[in-house]
Amino acid sequence: MDGEQFRAASRQMTDYIADYLTNIRERRVLPEVEPGYLRPLLPAQAPDTPDEWSDVMADIERVIMPGVTHWHSPHFHAYFPTGNSYPAILADMLSDAIGCIGFTWISSPACTELEVVMLDWLGQLLDLPSQFLAASGGKGGGVIQGTASEATLVAMLSAKTKMLKQVKKDKPYMADNAAAALVGYGSDQAHSSVERAGMMAGVKMRQVASDDNFAMRGPQLREAILKDKALGLIPFFVVGTMGATPACSFDNLREIGEVAQEFGLWCHVDAAYAGSAMVCEEFRYLMDGVELADSFNFNPHKWLLVNFDCSAMWIKDASEVVEAFNVDPLYLKHEQQGQVPDYRHWQIPLGRRFRSLKLWFVMRLYGKHGLQAHIRKQVDLAHQFETRVKKDPRFEIIAPVTLGLVCFRLKRSNEVNETLLKNLNAGGVIHLVPAKIKDTYFLRFAVCSRLTEPQDVDEAWQEVLKQTDLLLQEI
Amino acid sequence: MDGEQFRAASRQMTDYIADYLTNIRERRVLPEVEPGYLRPLLPAQAPDTPDEWSDVMADIERVIMPGVTHWHSPHFHAYFPTGNSYPAILADMLSDAIGCIGFTWISSPACTELEVVMLDWLGQLLDLPSQFLAASGGKGGGVIQGTASEATLVAMLSAKTKMLKQVKKDKPYMADNAAAALVGYGSDQAHSSVERAGMMAGVKMRQVASDDNFAMRGPQLREAILKDKALGLIPFFVVGTMGATPACSFDNLREIGEVAQEFGLWCHVDAAYAGSAMVCEEFRYLMDGVELADSFNFNPHKWLLVNFDCSAMWIKDASEVVEAFNVDPLYLKHEQQGQVPDYRHWQIPLGRRFRSLKLWFVMRLYGKHGLQAHIRKQVDLAHQFETRVKKDPRFEIIAPVTLGLVCFRLKRSNEVNETLLKNLNAGGVIHLVPAKIKDTYFLRFAVCSRLTEPQDVDEAWQEVLKQTDLLLQEI
Repeated sequence: MDGEQFRAASRQMTDYIADYLTNIRERRVLPEVEPGYLRPLLPAQAPDTPDEWSDVMADIERVIMPGVTHWHSPHFHAYFPTGNSYPAILADMLSDAIGCIGFTWISSPACTELEVVMLDWLGQLLDLPSQFLAASGGKGGGVIQGTASEATLVAMLSAKTKMLKQVKKDKPYMADNAAAALVGYGSDQAHSSVERAGMMAGVKMRQVASDDNFAMRGPQLREAILKDKALGLIPFFVVGTMGATPACSFDNLREIGEVAQEFGLWCHVDAAYAGSAMVCEEFRYLMDGVELADSFNFNPHKWLLVNFDCSAMWIKDASEVVEAFNVDPLYLKHEQQGQVPDYRHWQIPLGRRFRSLKLWFVMRLYGKHGLQAHIRKQVDLAHQFETRVKKDPRFEIIAPVTLGLVCFRLKRSNEVNETLLKNLNAGGVIHLVPAKIKDTYFLRFAVCSRLTEPQDVDEAWQEVLKQTDLLLQEI
Repeated sequence: MDGEQFRAASRQMTDYIADYLTNIRERRVLPEVEPGYLRPLLPAQAPDTPDEWSDVMADIERVIMPGVTHWHSPHFHAYFPTGNSYPAILADMLSDAIGCIGFTWISSPACTELEVVMLDWLGQLLDLPSQFLAASGGKGGGVIQGTASEATLVAMLSAKTKMLKQVKKDKPYMADNAAAALVGYGSDQAHSSVERAGMMAGVKMRQVASDDNFAMRGPQLREAILKDKALGLIPFFVVGTMGATPACSFDNLREIGEVAQEFGLWCHVDAAYAGSAMVCEEFRYLMDGVELADSFNFNPHKWLLVNFDCSAMWIKDASEVVEAFNVDPLYLKHEQQGQVPDYRHWQIPLGRRFRSLKLWFVMRLYGKHGLQAHIRKQVDLAHQFETRVKKDPRFEIIAPVTLGLVCFRLKRSNEVNETLLKNLNAGGVIHLVPAKIKDTYFLRFAVCSRLTEPQDVDEAWQEVLKQTDLLLQEI
């Protein structure tokens, strides 16, 4: 395919994309295919000679679309949102065309430098403490990670290196066995990636019991740390969550941060979903105490209209990350080392795309007010759904509706609620996923698509009512 | 930006991209900016209200392009190539529009299933042993990782889990301290990401001395293992490299695989760069013995015209990866678990994009013959450069030219060669990076851009001659 053929093909793809997103409401949100549906639709091997472009385009509807779960459908209410916007798509086109690998400054200065500045812009939009920003001229700075899972792992590995160095200095007799004695903490509401990071980093992780609002609190963390210290273990790391996946609950960052400082733990804040809401002043009380954290992460690719992947992470003292796994072969050295970040030291992989273009395009083409309006509208839609649930005495809300998630259930057994969820998803009108806290199974209604309107929320509730009536008639 | 505005903007971006890539030869390959160039070109913060699209488009040339290292310029000969093609760009546009997160089958069945089939197509193109392919119906299968670094880490963590389980079963008295006793191996030519993976996984890594062809051989590996066993350590993992970064050298996979089997080590093959060449029969002798490996990885995003990121990894027994860090919260459970891969268990992050579309578009729109022609042309270009170097008695070739990399130097001191490289990069006509093996510093000429033609190679050599003449006159 040459440049002229690309011009024509890209126009076709552009129209396909605009049509797809404009009319996405008409598609069944959850596909009806069975596992293994796709293989019989394709040849057993790649063609020897090129296929026609028109055949490739036609195969999108024939092969792919029947098996797509439409995350940007206004009927999609599962998990948490993932970002999608026209500015982000345009930025990714440019990123693909430039196609640079930004592992060092010299490998594409614009790739590194735009990222430094965009993480400052973004941090300012959230009103993050200035120590996190490169613009402050201190040791802090931001970086784009692929996912919140990777940000947690990077923070954990940095904390591990820092603590092992400390032990070696303070208690050299313990140094040999220190790694096996490290222990980290997260709430019982923390994302599964926190436990998983512990498995990857080879350290023990404890789940601290959350309180009645599903929040991890200082005294419980303190107690867990003291218990482990009495066993001869070395507490080194804690994750505080803002907007935990099961019920969008918030740990008490101030209490956790104070305990972390008391015992010398690295405090990482995982605000994967809820961080985006900090562009609105009225939600910033939820991050009270964030200035006590060592690192902070949230996913613009979740709720801030940026396409996956773009997980923004700030570190108060970036040198502690850089030193954690710094390997420096000659073929990656360059003359400007030290003057600018070499982001390869800040992340798990070596290679990296030009992802800050997405942040730049989205922040410029929405503006601060546009991003705030998006968040506020989606929170309003969640409250509209909440209001409907509360009016029906057969249902209960099981957690405060703070942002865009409504956790609800029939006042019946877990099994009845499981059947309701199964029937809702089988109905094909809306898509939800469940969660369970302290043995209570519930349904999660997340406002996800940027295309969701009040009428969609109303239709979703009508579908819940319809499936509920059918179910309760049967049992 | 609505759908209609997107149609117009995307047409502009399409033309910009086609123009950029068509005329890329005219741009200076390495930018002349100084660290910190970008910040003064932008406002100190994001705008409150949306900027105009025309201003955003105009800023690409004003802000970004002055700081871009043009990886797809035919004058770019640094590192190894990174893929870029029109079919891959089109596929990424579609991937962004669908914007699904494919962590489980149900989260978008097409995303998982196309990946399973594309990894089979690709494995067949390389003539990988059938045990690696899902189509064989065995325990094997492929997955797209972000980078080769991540593939190495996934293999290493899986090997670690497997060995710790084995120790617990066979020598329960050692289980408590087994993790600290694990030791892995790679050649002294292995990529820096191998050493880095060891730091992340918290295991010791040994560099095995390579032979005169820069290849790791069986006897040296065997000796290192025996030495560690005598110390009471537990050898568990070895990486064999195909096309190592410094000089594109090849470990002896058959010898390494046999030693790995003798001692029960997991053998991972890192063919990040060279793997793409396996689409051509005449290069497959380089992977002799690959059937002895437990996992195999290469980067279609390097040399197979697929845009970053797309690192293809095959595992002989996928259950060993799935069990390594399997965490299974309710919100990610679904009814089809077990029938199809849930790729979240195969990788470090949780989220994942619809990256197999890129493989599909590229394999279909180039065809097997088109991909082979691309590899063969680039290897020919490398040999053209090699021929020129060999004709000039002032230079020497320091490693066999097997694929697209020529390692050469002036028959002078390291310092003279360092100056030559510095002057070449400062000249702005071509861009190279150096490497050093056993204290010999040399220049690496990699054929990178798919747009490179014989005339570009000739011009590159003329530039080397010009800078050499200037330098030798001065000293």
